[in-house]
Amino acid sequence: MTSASTSPFRVSLDAMGGDFGPSETVAAAVAAVAAGDLHVLLVGDPTEIQTEIERHSAQDLPLTVVPSEDVIRDGESPLQALRAKPKASAIIGVGLVKEGLADAFVTMGSTGAAMAASAFGLGMMPGIERPGLGGPMYGLAPKTTLIELGSSIDCNPTKLLNFAALGVAFARTYLDVTNPRVALLSVGSEDTKGNKQTKEAFPVFQQSGLNFIGNVEGHDLAVNTADVIVCDGFVGNILLKAMEGLGVSLAAYMKERLSGLVSEADAAAVSQDIYDILNRTEHTGGGPLFGVKGNVIVGHGRARAIGIAGAIATAKRLGELSLTSKMEEELATIRASVAI
Amino acid sequence: MTSASTSPFRVSLDAMGGDFGPSETVAAAVAAVAAGDLHVLLVGDPTEIQTEIERHSAQDLPLTVVPSEDVIRDGESPLQALRAKPKASAIIGVGLVKEGLADAFVTMGSTGAAMAASAFGLGMMPGIERPGLGGPMYGLAPKTTLIELGSSIDCNPTKLLNFAALGVAFARTYLDVTNPRVALLSVGSEDTKGNKQTKEAFPVFQQSGLNFIGNVEGHDLAVNTADVIVCDGFVGNILLKAMEGLGVSLAAYMKERLSGLVSEADAAAVSQDIYDILNRTEHTGGGPLFGVKGNVIVGHGRARAIGIAGAIATAKRLGELSLTSKMEEELATIRASVAI
Repeated sequence: MTSASTSPFRVSLDAMGGDFGPSETVAAAVAAVAAGDLHVLLVGDPTEIQTEIERHSAQDLPLTVVPSEDVIRDGESPLQALRAKPKASAIIGVGLVKEGLADAFVTMGSTGAAMAASAFGLGMMPGIERPGLGGPMYGLAPKTTLIELGSSIDCNPTKLLNFAALGVAFARTYLDVTNPRVALLSVGSEDTKGNKQTKEAFPVFQQSGLNFIGNVEGHDLAVNTADVIVCDGFVGNILLKAMEGLGVSLAAYMKERLSGLVSEADAAAVSQDIYDILNRTEHTGGGPLFGVKGNVIVGHGRARAIGIAGAIATAKRLGELSLTSKMEEELATIRASVAI
Repeated sequence: MTSASTSPFRVSLDAMGGDFGPSETVAAAVAAVAAGDLHVLLVGDPTEIQTEIERHSAQDLPLTVVPSEDVIRDGESPLQALRAKPKASAIIGVGLVKEGLADAFVTMGSTGAAMAASAFGLGMMPGIERPGLGGPMYGLAPKTTLIELGSSIDCNPTKLLNFAALGVAFARTYLDVTNPRVALLSVGSEDTKGNKQTKEAFPVFQQSGLNFIGNVEGHDLAVNTADVIVCDGFVGNILLKAMEGLGVSLAAYMKERLSGLVSEADAAAVSQDIYDILNRTEHTGGGPLFGVKGNVIVGHGRARAIGIAGAIATAKRLGELSLTSKMEEELATIRASVAI
C-alpha cells in the first residue's frame, strides 16, 4: 500500500466493456489494486469475472464482483438501450457511483451508453446539456486540451464557453497548467476570421474572464500555442479521427521506409511510437466525461489491460483532485461574468 | 521540344509572388521552358527579372517580360488592393489570360489576391460564388481530393454540391479516377450523423446523380475510402493546417528519434519525407482555383524553383486537359439533376 488511508479510492469498472471483456478488464483491475490504495468493483457477469480473478490468483485482493446483466454495445441507440437493458453493466456501474458505493466509474464500452447512463444517473452540471469529450489528443502536445470531440455537434457560443470552462478546470487541475490560455479554433487569428459560430463566440469569450488569447489555427494544435482549444464536436471529432487515421497509415509507411535502414525490431518500435503519438487516447487510459456530476472515465474500446489500468489510475487521480468540484466552480465563475 | 505543336502553351507567371520573388520564379521559368513546348510570360519588375534571366544565360529561351508595378501581399485586403494597386503582378498576370495572351496564370503570391483578381478578371462559373481550393492534401492518399480548403467558410448544400462537381471533374480529368466516389465529411457514416449542414446536404447529394457513397469520417482522409471528400472551407482549412503542423512537429520528432539508429543523413531524409507527406501542397506545385473561368494555379509561398516549376507544369497539364471546360460540364449536369 502506498498510502495509510483507511478508505481506499473505490472504482466501479465495467468489466464487460471494451473489445476484449473480462480477460482484459479483470487483468487491469488486478494490476491497479496491486499498486495499492484502491478498491475495484467489477461490474458484469459474475461467473466470467470470477474465472478471471482465479486465473490471476487474485482472490485476496480488494476486488468485489457486482453482478450485471447484458451490455450496451456501440451502434445501439443509448437511450433505447437504457430502457431495454436496465441491468446493463454501464447502468449498474454508474449506479454504484450514484449510491455512494463507488467514487468513480470506468468503462471501455460504448461511449454513448456511458454518456446516457451518466446523464440520467448522475445528472449534468448547471449549463451543460450533455456530457462532453475532451483532453490532449496529440502526443507531442500533451498539455494542449482540445474540447469538444464529438458529443455536442452544433454548438452556440454559450455551449462553447461552457466547454471552455470545463477545459480550463481540467487543464489547471489535471495537467497542472497555471492560468490556462484559452483559444477558439478557427481559420485565422483575427477576430474577423472564422465561421458564423466562432465569430459569434469571439466577443462572448472576450468578456468571459477566461484567459482568452483569441483564435488559433489548425497548426496550433501541435505547438503549444494555447492550453485549451475550443471547437464544436463536429470539428473536434473529424480532427481526432483524422489524426488516428494518419497514425495508422504513417506507422505502416514508417515500417516500410525504415526497412533496410534499421533492424526489424527498431523499425517496429519507431512505427509504434508514431502510431501512439497520433492515437493518444488508446494508450493513456481514457478521459473524463466533461460536465457530469460525478467521475466517469471513458477509455478506448481497443484498450488492453495496461490501457485499462491507466484509465483506473486516471479515475483515482481525478477523484483525488476533486476535478468535478473544480469544474462546477469554473462554470459558476463563468456564469457570473457573462450573462448566460 | 517534346511536341511538334507550333503554338506552345503560354503561362503567365507572377514573377514577384512567393517568399523569394524573381530569384526563384525566374529560375523556375527557365527550368520549365527548357523542358519544351512552353512559353512563359514573366510578370513583374523588368529590371529584376532581366537580371535573373541574364544570370541564367536564358536570353534565347521562350521567355517574355511583362512589366507590372507593385505586389499584393498576404494580409492585405484583396478587394482594397485590387483598387489601390491596379498594376500589381497578380492583376496584370490574370489580365494576360483574360486578353487571350496567356493560357494560364501561375502565382506563389497571396491566394486572396489571386482569387480576387481571377474572380474580377475572368469571372466565375455558373453557380460558383468565389474561387475554391481543393486537391489531394495527404501524400499517402494522393488521389483523394478534399474540397473546400478555406475560401468558402459557411456553405449551404448547394455550395457543397457545386464543390463536389468541381472536385469530380478534377479527380476524373487530372487524377485519372474513373467515376469518382463522392462523400461528405462528417462524424459517422449514417445519414443521421453530422451537423445541421451535412444533414441538409445529404439528401441533396443523394439525388444529385453523383456517385455519392454517403458520409465518411476523419480517418477516411488517409485510406482511399472516397475520391472526392466534401466539407466546408472552415473544416477543410483547419484540417489542412493541422496536417501541416503535424508534419513540422513529427519531422522534428523523427530526426531526434532516429538519432543513433541511422546516419544523420538518413535521419534527415526520413524526417523530410514525413514533412513532405503532410505538407503536400508545398512540394507538388500548387493547385487550381476551382470554379474560375480560366486556368489559375496557386502555389505555396514557401515554394522554391523546383516547386514553382511544378506549378507551371501543372498549369500546362490542366490546360491541355481542358479542366475548366470539364468543370463547367459537370456543374451543368448537376444543375440539370437537382433543382438548384
